[in-house]
Amino acid sequence: MYEIDKVDLKIVNLLLEDGRKSASEIARQLGDVSERAVRYRILRMLEEDVIRISAVVRPEAFGMLVKADVLMEVESDRIREVAQKMTEYENVTYVACSIGETDVSIQVVAKDTDEVYRFITETIRKVPGVRRTTTSIVPVILKDVYQWRVPESAIKNPK
Amino acid sequence: MYEIDKVDLKIVNLLLEDGRKSASEIARQLGDVSERAVRYRILRMLEEDVIRISAVVRPEAFGMLVKADVLMEVESDRIREVAQKMTEYENVTYVACSIGETDVSIQVVAKDTDEVYRFITETIRKVPGVRRTTTSIVPVILKDVYQWRVPESAIKNPK
Amino acid sequence: MYEIDKVDLKIVNLLLEDGRKSASEIARQLGDVSERAVRYRILRMLEEDVIRISAVVRPEAFGMLVKADVLMEVESDRIREVAQKMTEYENVTYVACSIGETDVSIQVVAKDTDEVYRFITETIRKVPGVRRTTTSIVPVILKDVYQWRVPESAIKNPK
Amino acid sequence: MYEIDKVDLKIVNLLLEDGRKSASEIARQLGDVSERAVRYRILRMLEEDVIRISAVVRPEAFGMLVKADVLMEVESDRIREVAQKMTEYENVTYVACSIGETDVSIQVVAKDTDEVYRFITETIRKVPGVRRTTTSIVPVILKDVYQWRVPESAIKNPK
Amino acid sequence: MYEIDKVDLKIVNLLLEDGRKSASEIARQLGDVSERAVRYRILRMLEEDVIRISAVVRPEAFGMLVKADVLMEVESDRIREVAQKMTEYENVTYVACSIGETDVSIQVVAKDTDEVYRFITETIRKVPGVRRTTTSIVPVILKDVYQWRVPESAIKNPK
Amino acid sequence: MYEIDKVDLKIVNLLLEDGRKSASEIARQLGDVSERAVRYRILRMLEEDVIRISAVVRPEAFGMLVKADVLMEVESDRIREVAQKMTEYENVTYVACSIGETDVSIQVVAKDTDEVYRFITETIRKVPGVRRTTTSIVPVILKDVYQWRVPESAIKNPK
Amino acid sequence: MYEIDKVDLKIVNLLLEDGRKSASEIARQLGDVSERAVRYRILRMLEEDVIRISAVVRPEAFGMLVKADVLMEVESDRIREVAQKMTEYENVTYVACSIGETDVSIQVVAKDTDEVYRFITETIRKVPGVRRTTTSIVPVILKDVYQWRVPESAIKNPK
Amino acid sequence: MYEIDKVDLKIVNLLLEDGRKSASEIARQLGDVSERAVRYRILRMLEEDVIRISAVVRPEAFGMLVKADVLMEVESDRIREVAQKMTEYENVTYVACSIGETDVSIQVVAKDTDEVYRFITETIRKVPGVRRTTTSIVPVILKDVYQWRVPESAIKNPK
Repeated sequence: MYEIDKVDLKIVNLLLEDGRKSASEIARQLGDVSERAVRYRILRMLEEDVIRISAVVRPEAFGMLVKADVLMEVESDRIREVAQKMTEYENVTYVACSIGETDVSIQVVAKDTDEVYRFITETIRKVPGVRRTTTSIVPVILKDVYQWRVPESAIKNPK
Repeated sequence: MYEIDKVDLKIVNLLLEDGRKSASEIARQLGDVSERAVRYRILRMLEEDVIRISAVVRPEAFGMLVKADVLMEVESDRIREVAQKMTEYENVTYVACSIGETDVSIQVVAKDTDEVYRFITETIRKVPGVRRTTTSIVPVILKDVYQWRVPESAIKNPK
Repeated sequence: MYEIDKVDLKIVNLLLEDGRKSASEIARQLGDVSERAVRYRILRMLEEDVIRISAVVRPEAFGMLVKADVLMEVESDRIREVAQKMTEYENVTYVACSIGETDVSIQVVAKDTDEVYRFITETIRKVPGVRRTTTSIVPVILKDVYQWRVPESAIKNPK
Repeated sequence: MYEIDKVDLKIVNLLLEDGRKSASEIARQLGDVSERAVRYRILRMLEEDVIRISAVVRPEAFGMLVKADVLMEVESDRIREVAQKMTEYENVTYVACSIGETDVSIQVVAKDTDEVYRFITETIRKVPGVRRTTTSIVPVILKDVYQWRVPESAIKNPK
Repeated sequence: MYEIDKVDLKIVNLLLEDGRKSASEIARQLGDVSERAVRYRILRMLEEDVIRISAVVRPEAFGMLVKADVLMEVESDRIREVAQKMTEYENVTYVACSIGETDVSIQVVAKDTDEVYRFITETIRKVPGVRRTTTSIVPVILKDVYQWRVPESAIKNPK
Repeated sequence: MYEIDKVDLKIVNLLLEDGRKSASEIARQLGDVSERAVRYRILRMLEEDVIRISAVVRPEAFGMLVKADVLMEVESDRIREVAQKMTEYENVTYVACSIGETDVSIQVVAKDTDEVYRFITETIRKVPGVRRTTTSIVPVILKDVYQWRVPESAIKNPK
Repeated sequence: MYEIDKVDLKIVNLLLEDGRKSASEIARQLGDVSERAVRYRILRMLEEDVIRISAVVRPEAFGMLVKADVLMEVESDRIREVAQKMTEYENVTYVACSIGETDVSIQVVAKDTDEVYRFITETIRKVPGVRRTTTSIVPVILKDVYQWRVPESAIKNPK
Repeated sequence: MYEIDKVDLKIVNLLLEDGRKSASEIARQLGDVSERAVRYRILRMLEEDVIRISAVVRPEAFGMLVKADVLMEVESDRIREVAQKMTEYENVTYVACSIGETDVSIQVVAKDTDEVYRFITETIRKVPGVRRTTTSIVPVILKDVYQWRVPESAIKNPK
């Protein structure tokens, strides 16, 4: 595994703010690292799957104003199959399996609550293996996974 | 609001795969759009907050191997305050308020289940206003928000 | 108590369709009852509180597109007080006390899910005595109380 | 959509109190609007489905002294069908579909708790697709939908 | 219906203490009623099903030291049939149908918790139509139905 | 402890049917036991608290047409005190403490559901220590404790 | 049944600390009991099944770092069969049947949460008769059954 | 960490059956290992905390015939303190903290259900910080932690 250091972390944090920031700009901001080193480190972190750099789309910009969490109880032996099926729907932005009360949880985006309702009753609940669903509207997301910063404590040998 | 069209959508989809793909490369892949137009469209979408381009960090690369969803019941009049507080913790990657049974739901990353447990009992549950928490371990995430593609149907006047 | 008969029932059913239908029109439709008798019977039913005739407003016509049921758990000794308070809010269309799991249940109308959320977190949950709320969005109402017809079997001595 | 104004609102509020109040009486109470204008505005609001004017029957007047809310869990793919079926029963005054824990919720009126019980066990629970029901008696309704007044804030351009 | 009066009530209360107290003894204790009148009133109350006079057996005296309440969820259309079946078991002292979360509730007496467990798993849960059971041990009964006294307020025309 | 035998059991069963059946009548029905022996055995069973013979009042005969089970959650350290308080209310026919989800469960009788509701909200829920109540209407009781017969298997040395 | 006395209890307590402590060492520590008596008493307690002396393996020493409690709802008539099946799995350290909400509860040990998840979804939930499972991670066990000391009060005739 | 091998495992399995089996007897059963090596290996495993060898007491032998699981909800910030307190009670054989719905779970042994009840209401529920308890009787334990055998697959380098 690639052992990331404090310099990597600084690079990552700059890329969290702007994923397209150029290596030369990053080098300039860090001061004591060459553009070439920055380029190399980014490449390594991408190759080692430490980070990905990606567009993240804001559904509201496309008129998808309502988000909902759907907790699903699934027939005992079809959890993976149902979860896999969920990833294929365009309205579904998140699919996870969990240990606890819920078997599969998804997040849905839609134009309005009617579309959420129709999607759940006409699509989700007709997928074979889905036994029950509980839906909560999510009006506010204050922090999302692409805003998460790596804690400094996660680095083993900071230089 | 910026009315995105089919060309924008193609650009977004290429940036979902690689957020650092250069405008010239995108122009080359699309064929009938100039590099300058690509650059302009990306800029507009970033300015209009249609997309953001960001590094997304994989917590597993930092030895944070366990994810957990924590559903929180909060004292009637302190929901926003508690949710805001949650965004500040380094271990928390997601914070949302919801309408339903749960008041605030967060996602936590940690080294192992012991760290999850200590974080919940020693930090989260001592935040004033937190009444009850229910935690589920999330062993599998099959799709995440930064992998979501905009449905073609979301574009009003495709060219 | 006013003993309503089969003729009254026919009048009520016509008024369910159109609450402003004139007595003469009703008499004409019934055939064997005079306008004067119709007028008298309507008056008696209104006076005896058997029916009321009222405008019923469609919230959607005012841009209030989202309805939500809020089930409330209330401190043991403040149920009536909380229920009474609820009747005063403009966004609340229905307030009932119930025997079972829930103490007070209300229906809320709002512009969108954000307004529902703000109303619940900033108003409802700050009312003294409210301990917990559970909210469900209600996307479809197929039948409402003002569409209910009296069953024929409810009349004791049909003529 | 018909843009209702402050005058319309005043008319609606008078019709909430008495749905049969004549246009001339309304005009007289408003002072500065002609009977003809009142008549026209009422007609427009009825045609545009902004309001309906209807008799609302008080079940207690027919000896139906008990009201009950029945929350229904329905087989995943039969929600609409079950909800539709519910609207046909004479004892059912309200039928809604909801997003949350419950699939379909209805309100039942009956002579006494025995009749509620028989109706649920012998009719409702034998409808194909109904998996579970939870019933709460509703002893007090403090506000009902036909008593809801439109908030002044709902009017965009008050004159 | 037999209209019971204050004298009847006094007789009933004496019979609650000792169901075999003789009419002459009761007459003596009341003072102003003849033995014959007492006998007649008891007879009438028995005939009119106002009271019954019965031995009530204390299960503990037979080594049945454990009581348990079993709440049963029953398949939608088999409630009455299951409830009827329950009345036949020797270990079951109480069977009721209810409106709420539970369909049928019973009370079981047994020698010890093992016998309770075996009775539930090997008998109750194998009755067709029984879907789920929840059992609570009942260590203390402070008041039982045969100790209930009629409130004085229940008599309409006390003499 | 009094060791009851098969003869005792026969006597008890006759007293279950009619608690005032005379010793001579019982002796006659049993055939091979003297009136004096019957009298002695009944006395012993009463003294040893094996049975009690009591009037059991039917609440319906007093216009108390509705029964309800109330499950109570009580503050951790006030269970006995609350249970004791419950035994004093005229409307309460049964009070038990249980091990499981519920702390105290009672059965209430009342004229109608309104009286049940008022009793719960205005009396029960104002008793100090009562945190939450869940109420179910009980429309049908098919078997009650005073109808329970001792199983033959409960007798150790049948003659 | 073997009546254990205060001396036995002292021996048991020494064996709780070290199950291989020799009889002579125990005799020496007790002072007033011969090695031969100690040996005899241990033998009797083992034969009478009062105690067992056993190695207890610490799963963490084998890299099994995660423990989880799994509560299982089982089809009404297959409880024993499912419980029996559970005892055969290598990952399962505890299997019990219970009276209450849960039918069968087990404790699972595994390398990490992923292994817990795979074991539950791919093995446990495919066992015929298993209807639902709820899993909780158990990060801390403060006291276990092999650390339990017999209360002195449990001895009837202490010498 | 001590790397246990296949020989260790065989020794452990023999000690699971009889914790006092002598090293010489174990050596004889294994065949190709010296008594001295067995003694050394046991010592190492005890020192490295891989196993412990302990008496395990059967509560039934002391007339403690009833076992119960108690799930506890504890005030947000007192979990550890409450759990610690629980370990001190003589009736408590197991104390764990968990991630999920329950905060602390314990197992209680007692003479009968009355003692369970008294212990919970008079002791457990009066411990400061305990908010709610749910108790299930555990009539059958089919496998316990001291019967768990290490899976062969847990050994990394079997010889």
